[in-house]
Amino acid sequence: MSFTQSSLKVGELATGHELNVPIFRFRGTDVEAPRVYIQANVHGAEVQGNAVIYQLMQRLETANVLGDVVLVPLANPLGINQKSGEFTLGRFDPITGVNWNREYFDHKVDVEVWYAQHHHLDDAALTHAFRTHLIAACQARLDGEWGITSGHQLAVSLQKMAHDADIVLDLHTGPKSCKHLYCPTYAYELAKQFSIPYTLIIPNDFGGAMDESIFCPWWQLSEHMATQGRSFAVAVDAFTLELGSQEHIDLEDAKQDAHGIMAYLSAKGVIGEQVLPAEMSRFGCYLKDYKKYHAPLGGMVEYKATLGEKLSAGQPLANILRLDKYGSDQVLTPLTLPLDCVPILHFASASVYQGTELYKVMTNVFEL
Amino acid sequence: MSFTQSSLKVGELATGHELNVPIFRFRGTDVEAPRVYIQANVHGAEVQGNAVIYQLMQRLETANVLGDVVLVPLANPLGINQKSGEFTLGRFDPITGVNWNREYFDHKVDVEVWYAQHHHLDDAALTHAFRTHLIAACQARLDGEWGITSGHQLAVSLQKMAHDADIVLDLHTGPKSCKHLYCPTYAYELAKQFSIPYTLIIPNDFGGAMDESIFCPWWQLSEHMATQGRSFAVAVDAFTLELGSQEHIDLEDAKQDAHGIMAYLSAKGVIGEQVLPAEMSRFGCYLKDYKKYHAPLGGMVEYKATLGEKLSAGQPLANILRLDKYGSDQVLTPLTLPLDCVPILHFASASVYQGTELYKVMTNVFEL
Amino acid sequence: MSFTQSSLKVGELATGHELNVPIFRFRGTDVEAPRVYIQANVHGAEVQGNAVIYQLMQRLETANVLGDVVLVPLANPLGINQKSGEFTLGRFDPITGVNWNREYFDHKVDVEVWYAQHHHLDDAALTHAFRTHLIAACQARLDGEWGITSGHQLAVSLQKMAHDADIVLDLHTGPKSCKHLYCPTYAYELAKQFSIPYTLIIPNDFGGAMDESIFCPWWQLSEHMATQGRSFAVAVDAFTLELGSQEHIDLEDAKQDAHGIMAYLSAKGVIGEQVLPAEMSRFGCYLKDYKKYHAPLGGMVEYKATLGEKLSAGQPLANILRLDKYGSDQVLTPLTLPLDCVPILHFASASVYQGTELYKVMTNVFEL
Amino acid sequence: MSFTQSSLKVGELATGHELNVPIFRFRGTDVEAPRVYIQANVHGAEVQGNAVIYQLMQRLETANVLGDVVLVPLANPLGINQKSGEFTLGRFDPITGVNWNREYFDHKVDVEVWYAQHHHLDDAALTHAFRTHLIAACQARLDGEWGITSGHQLAVSLQKMAHDADIVLDLHTGPKSCKHLYCPTYAYELAKQFSIPYTLIIPNDFGGAMDESIFCPWWQLSEHMATQGRSFAVAVDAFTLELGSQEHIDLEDAKQDAHGIMAYLSAKGVIGEQVLPAEMSRFGCYLKDYKKYHAPLGGMVEYKATLGEKLSAGQPLANILRLDKYGSDQVLTPLTLPLDCVPILHFASASVYQGTELYKVMTNVFEL
Repeated sequence: MSFTQSSLKVGELATGHELNVPIFRFRGTDVEAPRVYIQANVHGAEVQGNAVIYQLMQRLETANVLGDVVLVPLANPLGINQKSGEFTLGRFDPITGVNWNREYFDHKVDVEVWYAQHHHLDDAALTHAFRTHLIAACQARLDGEWGITSGHQLAVSLQKMAHDADIVLDLHTGPKSCKHLYCPTYAYELAKQFSIPYTLIIPNDFGGAMDESIFCPWWQLSEHMATQGRSFAVAVDAFTLELGSQEHIDLEDAKQDAHGIMAYLSAKGVIGEQVLPAEMSRFGCYLKDYKKYHAPLGGMVEYKATLGEKLSAGQPLANILRLDKYGSDQVLTPLTLPLDCVPILHFASASVYQGTELYKVMTNVFEL
Repeated sequence: MSFTQSSLKVGELATGHELNVPIFRFRGTDVEAPRVYIQANVHGAEVQGNAVIYQLMQRLETANVLGDVVLVPLANPLGINQKSGEFTLGRFDPITGVNWNREYFDHKVDVEVWYAQHHHLDDAALTHAFRTHLIAACQARLDGEWGITSGHQLAVSLQKMAHDADIVLDLHTGPKSCKHLYCPTYAYELAKQFSIPYTLIIPNDFGGAMDESIFCPWWQLSEHMATQGRSFAVAVDAFTLELGSQEHIDLEDAKQDAHGIMAYLSAKGVIGEQVLPAEMSRFGCYLKDYKKYHAPLGGMVEYKATLGEKLSAGQPLANILRLDKYGSDQVLTPLTLPLDCVPILHFASASVYQGTELYKVMTNVFEL
Repeated sequence: MSFTQSSLKVGELATGHELNVPIFRFRGTDVEAPRVYIQANVHGAEVQGNAVIYQLMQRLETANVLGDVVLVPLANPLGINQKSGEFTLGRFDPITGVNWNREYFDHKVDVEVWYAQHHHLDDAALTHAFRTHLIAACQARLDGEWGITSGHQLAVSLQKMAHDADIVLDLHTGPKSCKHLYCPTYAYELAKQFSIPYTLIIPNDFGGAMDESIFCPWWQLSEHMATQGRSFAVAVDAFTLELGSQEHIDLEDAKQDAHGIMAYLSAKGVIGEQVLPAEMSRFGCYLKDYKKYHAPLGGMVEYKATLGEKLSAGQPLANILRLDKYGSDQVLTPLTLPLDCVPILHFASASVYQGTELYKVMTNVFEL
Repeated sequence: MSFTQSSLKVGELATGHELNVPIFRFRGTDVEAPRVYIQANVHGAEVQGNAVIYQLMQRLETANVLGDVVLVPLANPLGINQKSGEFTLGRFDPITGVNWNREYFDHKVDVEVWYAQHHHLDDAALTHAFRTHLIAACQARLDGEWGITSGHQLAVSLQKMAHDADIVLDLHTGPKSCKHLYCPTYAYELAKQFSIPYTLIIPNDFGGAMDESIFCPWWQLSEHMATQGRSFAVAVDAFTLELGSQEHIDLEDAKQDAHGIMAYLSAKGVIGEQVLPAEMSRFGCYLKDYKKYHAPLGGMVEYKATLGEKLSAGQPLANILRLDKYGSDQVLTPLTLPLDCVPILHFASASVYQGTELYKVMTNVFEL
């Protein structure tokens, strides 16, 4: 299967240099098959998604691709190139502080009004009309007469491409993290295709992220139509995959995640081959049970809990070392949690202020 | 009038050093008089409010202070001390990117339920009970079992103090800016006391800022009680004063703003003396008419429009210089706006990315 | 006079985007006339030199250009595009901290050996051979088998171009600064051509800056040849012009500095027209008398002394405001100096740590 | 063995908060025994030295301490607390960019003059006089009439304490690194006591680092006296220990390094017990053979070579992934070196600009 490469301008630097994002497109052979949009590296330090796209494209080259697949690695040139010291300061806009993954456009479609105007359409026509509406709204946002912030320009440019697809995968990583997946409630059955052990089941609300910006309008339309007595399944899937830790490239590991994505694409009919999901245990947790634990004091941190493994109540989570307190019992503070959990990620640095988000842990974990 | 000094711990650094905020308290002689809370420098580079508090305290020392006045300069030690190159990187948390002035607690009081439980109280008792509720809710937030972020800890600690007052002033500056004031719709008559020429009239909603965190619950309660047939004026005033440009201290100019605050305090009965507001023209603008203009291209910027002065449609706002385009007509792009406005502030740097927020301008300006 | 434009690749970002610098070349009509190299904006926030190059190129277009003039605005794309908060963090490499203007190559030519090999040449041939040697050494540095740091790659690429010229002007600014000039001891008579009131006369040593990297090898050769009984004037001029404050573009002011450069070029025979220097007082100071004054305590700073004007001993330099000390005499610390001076520049921010370089002042100033 | 704790003020923040460093002192029982100074965490992200000091103090508490031991963990509060995004930006002063470990004072003692004035003293008196001179020179630097930079204030304050000791250990880490040691040429026999497999043998010159600032003056004096026919051994030992990777605390691993330091202190007679060095292979390399390899292109990096293990010429060092080049043979560039080496450390981030220092490798490694 061959592909074409193009490029999208998403901004301009102070010197005038253009910021461009590379776009790869595999043209599917079946116009009825779902179309796919996959991006990586919107957070600048979360680079592993590029390796996964690399391995995935190598598999697609030899696959029977039925639906169009668009792949956008290196999706945030401003974030990726923003170094501060030895690390990439790529989580937020260096000027405004806004998280790059909270810049997507909240359509706030008045689905009641919109459906009243389009209820005569059949499902296929309705889907087409709604998609057209979403894409046009993104374009209008990009063309606003007072301009648009750098972050919105990037995000809405990507979002506009993604609205054209039926399946959207946004490849991220945590700071130090085991693999996990953000999955909207309505779609969590599909989480079992990916090679990812932990799934966070999130509400169908908009919080600013890519996945939400894609599925929320469709879910709202679906919900409203249900109140009008018409069943209309959410027409798109959108997931955020967290593929391990930031600042890390591993081409072998990327093969496994490429395989998981292939299995999912196979299950959805995007590729002609049958690709089976990896055999592994998979667990779920509702977002309300996903807890952030903040450092109760400032100090040096020894991280003790293993990410992705069950931690029983009272077992060592981390130690806070405070040399200024040497000679007192406050020199070493062992931290524990009062309930069973699975630590999913921890802070990237070994020193913290009081209040730094130290760990995120899943509680009330269940097998999928 | 004498004062007392104390200190509030708002965090801990990685080395264990405590972050403390100095607090000055003038004890009023009349328990019926309104109580006042004034803070400055929550954004680290916006230092002029400290100079204003300095001049204000000097005036209060010789004034007849009726209501308690609490003054909190240097309110954000983490932000103030965060240097990046030669400037203070104090607008957002350096770890998370969250704007320090969007960290205040959204009470989301269910005023219907709360009022049903307290409607038997008279106005004074109701005010006391609601204030007690708000303070307790802040304390509960601070005591959360999973900890609290560094930014929330700072903000909610300050907010808890501020809820104890009837009048809250939050002293900020713009980047490069003329003086202006954020004023909730219900309170804009009072804007004429301050020595500030431009007033932004904002909705009574919560957006994360200090002023909103203070007045929103009271305004919601007032609105709900009105639907129940009981008139209950919003019990607090809260303003954000933008006292010029960041990275600038001017002790003489601070005297003028201290005078404006004294005039306001006089009008509210906080001090016994009559202090008249400065004679000056004052103008208003609704937040919906306050426009952000984003750089349409990257480049070097020559700022042309004078802040605080009317700019007619089509007059020079700024020039974008692009040396890489020398020899073409794109080397110099003059920027103009298609309508009359008053430029209030512009970006701090002389070079921009495409999409940088270049100017904020008031449109549909009217005399107060 | 027409010009040609080209581009020099000086690096590559993490996304693979090329970093290019625009180069403009006016081809002179007289091969005997001196050749000129002018660059601007090596420090990212020091943008005004671009405006000066803009105005200078407009004058060159209508001038009788005898010697080749190469102009390199926007010379440091990595530094110019490095934002941190609202300002440009462009003084040092964000990864290593190395000052962009200390990255030039120290040739450390063994002039004794070199001259022993070339003493048979006449002055013109000697000049040609030495220039060829310097350019080749830069190229060898760029081609090093272990690679070269990003900062050296940029600096040595620029330096290699500059070695090809007889006159090198490096356009900078201070933080908040009046105009001043760095001038090597042997060349200070020429300082009177520029429209710059203050001249620092620097030793002929290498400290890492562009100007030094250019003139030092020639000066060392000249000195050595003098010991061998042969008079050989330093063959190149190299200056650093500090054209006011960073983060500021002013096209009108740029015209004056363009005029000063034209006057200098006229005096050197680079252009055919006679351009007279501006009439103004000009003062000098030896580098040993150029003093850095560091903040004796941390706090908020009110800058009082006017840059570029004489400050008598004991007159107000700055105030340090310390609100945490309100109620004591340490709340306001007036700073003065014990001798007469001319403050040339001060720190960019209005708050300082203890030890921050607060002011640079010229002492023992004399009229040129 | 009991200890005392004190605190050294090394600076002041913009809010006026004092920057203090904790100091622990074990008072030895034998005034003839060597005195020791150990500091950690001068680079803010290099935290593991604190853990080593923690374990070392626990051992000293039960040891027979003959010579005074002063321990200074958390030695750089400004660097340690300087966060930028999720990591600690602690390698250089955030305002000036100057590496915190290049701020030590270069005494530039004129040993010829000094010795001429003191040659009549016996060795012990000479040692005392020279030490007194070095300490006084540091104090004079701290008291300079034009103030002192924040970085020098910190460094020279620490250095002054260190000059009072006979043995100075400066605990650092690399970015991602195996353990290694900087050892001056004259002292490398002692490297075998530490639990550190790789030793860099450095010239006896001053380059700005703590260890050099301590031993250089003594070595210069020793060298000069040798020319005068008097043998005078270098009176101090000073080492920089690189204890693994930054942003990492491991208390178990710290025990091993504490043991190595105990073995060294035992060999030097600082403690009464015999502590044997760990049995392990130890290797050396001269600084001239320690090579920095810079990224030949920008891109994403997969680090392949194992740190601390021999890498034969041509074996995989790293891969550079360039998704923008997918479809060409430039998408994946394998990097190798043309000679055998031991990779000691690599860059901390998984993406690089062209020219980023990617690896440091030892060549011409020999067994100690």
